[in-house]
Amino acid sequence: MIKIGIVGATGYTGIELMRLLSGHPEAEISVVTSRAEQGRPVGDVFPSLRDHVDLSFRGPDDERLAECDLIFFGTPNGTAMHHVPALLDAGIRVVDLSADFRLRDAAIWARWYGREHACPDLLATAVYGLPEVNREAIGNARLVANPGCYPTAVLLGFLPLLEAELVDPGSLIADAKSGISGAGRKEAMRTQFCEAADSFSAYAVPGHRHLPEILQGLRGLSGADVDLVFVPHLLPMIRGIHATLYARLLDPSADLQPLYEKRYRKEPFVDVLPPGSHPSTGGVRGANLCRLACHRPQDGGMAVILAVEDNLVKGAAGQAIQNMNIMFGLAETAGLTAAALQP
Amino acid sequence: MIKIGIVGATGYTGIELMRLLSGHPEAEISVVTSRAEQGRPVGDVFPSLRDHVDLSFRGPDDERLAECDLIFFGTPNGTAMHHVPALLDAGIRVVDLSADFRLRDAAIWARWYGREHACPDLLATAVYGLPEVNREAIGNARLVANPGCYPTAVLLGFLPLLEAELVDPGSLIADAKSGISGAGRKEAMRTQFCEAADSFSAYAVPGHRHLPEILQGLRGLSGADVDLVFVPHLLPMIRGIHATLYARLLDPSADLQPLYEKRYRKEPFVDVLPPGSHPSTGGVRGANLCRLACHRPQDGGMAVILAVEDNLVKGAAGQAIQNMNIMFGLAETAGLTAAALQP
Amino acid sequence: MIKIGIVGATGYTGIELMRLLSGHPEAEISVVTSRAEQGRPVGDVFPSLRDHVDLSFRGPDDERLAECDLIFFGTPNGTAMHHVPALLDAGIRVVDLSADFRLRDAAIWARWYGREHACPDLLATAVYGLPEVNREAIGNARLVANPGCYPTAVLLGFLPLLEAELVDPGSLIADAKSGISGAGRKEAMRTQFCEAADSFSAYAVPGHRHLPEILQGLRGLSGADVDLVFVPHLLPMIRGIHATLYARLLDPSADLQPLYEKRYRKEPFVDVLPPGSHPSTGGVRGANLCRLACHRPQDGGMAVILAVEDNLVKGAAGQAIQNMNIMFGLAETAGLTAAALQP
Amino acid sequence: MIKIGIVGATGYTGIELMRLLSGHPEAEISVVTSRAEQGRPVGDVFPSLRDHVDLSFRGPDDERLAECDLIFFGTPNGTAMHHVPALLDAGIRVVDLSADFRLRDAAIWARWYGREHACPDLLATAVYGLPEVNREAIGNARLVANPGCYPTAVLLGFLPLLEAELVDPGSLIADAKSGISGAGRKEAMRTQFCEAADSFSAYAVPGHRHLPEILQGLRGLSGADVDLVFVPHLLPMIRGIHATLYARLLDPSADLQPLYEKRYRKEPFVDVLPPGSHPSTGGVRGANLCRLACHRPQDGGMAVILAVEDNLVKGAAGQAIQNMNIMFGLAETAGLTAAALQP
Repeated sequence: MIKIGIVGATGYTGIELMRLLSGHPEAEISVVTSRAEQGRPVGDVFPSLRDHVDLSFRGPDDERLAECDLIFFGTPNGTAMHHVPALLDAGIRVVDLSADFRLRDAAIWARWYGREHACPDLLATAVYGLPEVNREAIGNARLVANPGCYPTAVLLGFLPLLEAELVDPGSLIADAKSGISGAGRKEAMRTQFCEAADSFSAYAVPGHRHLPEILQGLRGLSGADVDLVFVPHLLPMIRGIHATLYARLLDPSADLQPLYEKRYRKEPFVDVLPPGSHPSTGGVRGANLCRLACHRPQDGGMAVILAVEDNLVKGAAGQAIQNMNIMFGLAETAGLTAAALQP
Repeated sequence: MIKIGIVGATGYTGIELMRLLSGHPEAEISVVTSRAEQGRPVGDVFPSLRDHVDLSFRGPDDERLAECDLIFFGTPNGTAMHHVPALLDAGIRVVDLSADFRLRDAAIWARWYGREHACPDLLATAVYGLPEVNREAIGNARLVANPGCYPTAVLLGFLPLLEAELVDPGSLIADAKSGISGAGRKEAMRTQFCEAADSFSAYAVPGHRHLPEILQGLRGLSGADVDLVFVPHLLPMIRGIHATLYARLLDPSADLQPLYEKRYRKEPFVDVLPPGSHPSTGGVRGANLCRLACHRPQDGGMAVILAVEDNLVKGAAGQAIQNMNIMFGLAETAGLTAAALQP
Repeated sequence: MIKIGIVGATGYTGIELMRLLSGHPEAEISVVTSRAEQGRPVGDVFPSLRDHVDLSFRGPDDERLAECDLIFFGTPNGTAMHHVPALLDAGIRVVDLSADFRLRDAAIWARWYGREHACPDLLATAVYGLPEVNREAIGNARLVANPGCYPTAVLLGFLPLLEAELVDPGSLIADAKSGISGAGRKEAMRTQFCEAADSFSAYAVPGHRHLPEILQGLRGLSGADVDLVFVPHLLPMIRGIHATLYARLLDPSADLQPLYEKRYRKEPFVDVLPPGSHPSTGGVRGANLCRLACHRPQDGGMAVILAVEDNLVKGAAGQAIQNMNIMFGLAETAGLTAAALQP
Repeated sequence: MIKIGIVGATGYTGIELMRLLSGHPEAEISVVTSRAEQGRPVGDVFPSLRDHVDLSFRGPDDERLAECDLIFFGTPNGTAMHHVPALLDAGIRVVDLSADFRLRDAAIWARWYGREHACPDLLATAVYGLPEVNREAIGNARLVANPGCYPTAVLLGFLPLLEAELVDPGSLIADAKSGISGAGRKEAMRTQFCEAADSFSAYAVPGHRHLPEILQGLRGLSGADVDLVFVPHLLPMIRGIHATLYARLLDPSADLQPLYEKRYRKEPFVDVLPPGSHPSTGGVRGANLCRLACHRPQDGGMAVILAVEDNLVKGAAGQAIQNMNIMFGLAETAGLTAAALQP
C-alpha cells in the first residue's frame, strides 16, 4: 500500500481526497494535517468521513509526513512552495493541488499571486498534471502541479481543435461557470448562502488567476500564440464546472465529432457525447470525468464545445489521484471507478 | 382605472401580471381566464394572491373580455393569434406575451413554430414592445408583441454597440443563462426539481426559437446584417437571466462606459453599473430592470457586456405593464417602482 | 412624512427595512448607519437598492439620528441597549429588532445572552411588538421590542388554542424550520453556501435563545404555566419559517377551524387557510403575513398547527414597520400591501 | 456473480440500484426493464451511468428475467404484486422496493392504496426488510418487502426507546422532512422546480401512506399498541430525510445515549453520534447509513431523536442491496462501503 500524507486536509479538495482515497485499493492515508483542527478526529470535523478515515488531524510539520510515499498539498496558494523542496530532497513525491507549481514563469506567477515565488528553480521540473497531455512525464515526475479546475475543463475542451490546427488561435473564448466549492472552504461574505444562493453573476472579468495557467496550456497545445477571453461565473450550486467554449473555425466545414472521438477514445476519464448532446454537471457529480459535446450552431463558422466536470474531482482531487496512480505505476483508474451520483 | 383582462393567467407570466397589477395605481384586473382552473378563485390556486386578486378564473371566451380596455395574453405560443384579430376589431388593445406577433416574417415564424401563422397580415402592424427602441410606436400601438426574455437582455446589451457601429456585426456571441421559470409552468420531466436542481447545462445549442427574434432585433439596431451565435443554458434557480455578450470591437481603444451611460441615462428600467462591476440576477429579483456592465478584458479587442434581468419581470410581465403604461399615456413607471427582493 | 433612522442597516433586517420603507407612503429614511460601510452609498453596497435609497451610510453616532422621529435598530444583540436610553430621553421613539428588550426578566436575559443588561429598568416599559396581542400598548409605546422570527410564528400559531384554554399547556411542541437568513448577515462557516446548501439539520436542540422569549409569550397568552419543547432546524433556502406546532387537546372533539378564523378575522397580516390546507413559505415570500392551517390528524387528540412567515418580513422588518404604523397612528397596512413574490 | 434483474429501472430507486450495483463485487446486472425506454441504452437515458451499465432497457416481460437469481422491483405501487407470484414459483428471489408487500393486512393495504391486493396470501410470507430488526428472517426469505424511506428513519429512531419500554407508546410524534426525490421520477406540477424550490411546506397531514407501515412496525417493536402523529414535509433539495422524533419518557431521568450506542454498536449502517450532536442529511448523501442523535431538551421529560438518511440509499436502493447481501450470504456491507459525498 502506498502511504499517503495530506497537508491542509480541511479544505474541500482535502475532504475530497480523503473521500476518494478511503476507497482506493492500493493507497492508504497515513497522516492528515490541519493547523486549525489539530488533534481532532477527522470524523468529528467531517461526519461524512466517520468510520472511513480513522485518523486525527496533526500539525503541519508532523514527523509522520517523512514516512509517506506521496504527499498531497491541499493548502492555500503560497504554502506548498515553502515545504516542497525539503520533501523532494527526502525522496518523497508530491502532488500539489494549489497553484504554486502550475506556471513555468516565476515572474508571471509573482504578478498574479502577489508575492515572489519561494523556489522558482522547481518550476521547470514540476510536471503539469494533465494526464491527457503529459501522461509520460507524469509517470516520471517527483513533483506534479495538479491543474486548476477551470484550466482542466478549458484545456480538454479546446485540445483537439488546437492540436489539429482547425481554429484561429486568436479567437478563443471560454465562458465558464463554476459551483461555489471552487472558491474553497473559508468564511467569506461572497460565498455565504444568502449572498450566493438563488443568484448568478460573472466575477473577475478583468482578470482571473486561472487565465495565465490556461494560456500557458493552450500555447503548449497550439505551438502558436493563442489569445483567450476568459469569463468566469458563479453558479448557485455546490459542485460542477461547465465551460462553454467558442473558437472560429479556419475551415467551416470541419467535422468535429470524429476528431473529438478519436482523440479521446483511449482516455478513461474524458467522455465525448454523441452529436447534438448537452452534458450536465449533475451527470458527473462525484465522478472523475470530463464530459464533452461538440456543436457548430446553424452550420456556421463557430465551434461551440461544451465541457463539464466535477470541479472537486476531475478538477482537483480525482485528477490528483489519477496522477498518483500514474506516478506509482498503478492502474490509472484505481479508486476512481464509481459512477456519478445522480440525481 | 384601465380595465384589464388576462387570457391564460395560470402560467408564470400570468401570475406575475396579477402580482404586479394588484399594486398598480391606475389599472384594475377585470377578468382572468384559464381553461384548466375555470371557476376556481385565484387565491385558491395561487395562495400568494389571496386577498390581492379577488376574482375567479373564467373560461377563455368569457364575455367580460369584451368590456376590457386592454387584454394581456399569457397563453402558449400559437393561441393568441386566433383571438387577437376579433379583439382588435372590437377596439380592444392587446399586449401578447407569447411569441405570436414577434416576428415580422410569417415564413420564418412558421419554420420555428411548426405551423402556419393564423393572421400573417397583423405581423406588420404589431409593434415589438421594447420601449428603449420603440417607445413612440408603442404609444400608438393597438397590438404590442412583448419581447421574449432572452431577446430583451441580449438586445439591450448589444444595443449601444450596434447603434454606434463600434463592433463587427458578424462577431456577436450571446452566452445566455436562464432560471427555470423561463420554461413556463407545465409538467415536464426536464424541469422536475430532481432533474434540474443542483445541475447546469446548455440546451438547444443547435437552434432556439429566440434566435430569429434576436437576429431580427439586432438587424434593426444595426442597419447592417448581423450574425449571432446564441447558446442558452438552464440555471438551477427560479428567476433571472444573465446574458454574457461578446463582440469584437472595430476600434479596440473604444471607451464603452460613457457610451452605455449616455444611451441609457433617461431610461427608467435600464441601469448601467460603474466600471468593473458584475451585476447579479439576485439584485433584480422581482424588479422591472435590466442591469448592465461593460468590460474589455485585458484591454483587448473584445467587448464583454454583462446583462441581467428578472425573466418574469423586465423579461415578461413587467415589460408588458411598461408597454401598457406607454400605450395609455400613464407614467411609464406606474406600478413598477418596487425595489428588488434581495436577499 | 415620518423621519426614520436605521442603526445597523447592513444586516438582512436592515436591508429589508430599506426595501420596504423605500415604498412607504408616509415615511422617509433620513439616515442609515453602518460602522463597516461608513461613507459608501447604499446602492453601491446593495445594488438592489440603487435608485431606491439615495443615501450613504453614516457612522453609528451620526448627529442626524437626533432629528429622526423613529429609529429602528438592526444591530446585533447587546448593542441597542447602550443607545436606546439616550434616544428615548431625547424624545425619539425606538423599534428594536434585536433581542435587547424582548425579555422582561433581566436575569433570564443575562443567562441567555451572556452578559448583564445595560438598562434593566427599561425592560418593564418596553412593549413586545406583536400587534395581534399588544396593539393598544404598541400605539402608546415609546420603545417597542420587535419579536424574534421564531417567536412570531410560534406565538401566532398557538395563540387561539391557549386563549381558549383548549389544550394541555404542558404538552406543547414547536418543530420549527428556518431559512438561512435567520442567522443574520455575517461571515460564518456554518452558513457558507457549501456547508448549508442541499442539506438539512436541526441545531441548538439543547437550548435556543428564542426559547425563553417564546415561553414568556406563551405564558402571557395562557395565564397558566406552559411547557414547550422547541426544536429549530436550518432549511437550505434564504427566506421563510415553517413552524409545525403540536398540542394535546383537552377536548378531542374541538373544532379548530372556526376558532382560528374568528380570532384572526380582523387581522390584516394573519391568514387562516381553509381546512385541509398546507401553507408554504414560498407563498408568503416578501410579504408581511403569517399564514396558518389547522389539522387534527386521524381525528385524534393532537392539534397540529402549521404556521409560515417570511422571517425577514412578518418575522422582522415588516412587523417592525407594522409597529411603526401603529405607533404613529397610520393605517396599519401602509407600505405593507405588496403581494408575495411567487414563484 | 449473482445475476440481477431490475424491473422498472427508470425511477429514482432504479437509477440508484444501477449506480450502486455497478460497483458491487459479487453481483452483476443482467437485465433492466422499462416500458417507456425499451430498446434504448441505459447510458443514453442516464448519462451518469455511461460506461457503468452497458445494457439497453428491455420490455417488462423480457425472458432474460427468468435467468436471474434476484429481481428488484422499482415499479410504482400496484405493479409488483402482479408479477411476483410467478417469479417466486420459478425459484427467483425478489426484493420489492414498492409498497406492495409491506403491510401484513390486506384490508389496510386496500384502504390506503385504493385497490384490492392481487396476492394477499403472500403478505404473510413476505419479510419486512429492515435488517436491524429482521436480519435472520431476511436471510431465509424468498420475498423481501423493502421498507419505505420514512418508515426506515422513523423505526430506527424510535426502536431503542420502544424495545426498552422507556416511553409512553401513545405519545409518539414524527415530524419528518424529505427531499423531493422521495416523490419519485414522474412529471407532476407539485414537484416542478419552480413550484418546489426555495419553499417548504408540510403535505398529507390528514394521512400519508407511510403511516400504516410505520404503525405496523412500531407495534411490532413495542409489543403494545402505539399511537403516532406523523407529519411529512417537503424539503427544497433532492436527497435526504430528516425525522425529528418526539416521545414522552416514562422515566425522565433515563440516559438515552448508552441505550442507543449499545443497541446499534454492531450495526454497520446505523451510526449514533456523540451527545449534543445534530446529524445533517448532507453528511449521509449517497451513503447507506442512518445516523442518529439523542436529546432530552432542558433535561425535561421528552426524548427528541434526530434521524437522517439518504432516502434513495438507506431509505431505498442501498437497503435493498443490504437485504440482497443478507439473502445471499454475502458480506452485509458488500458494495455499500463508499463514504458520503460531502459537500
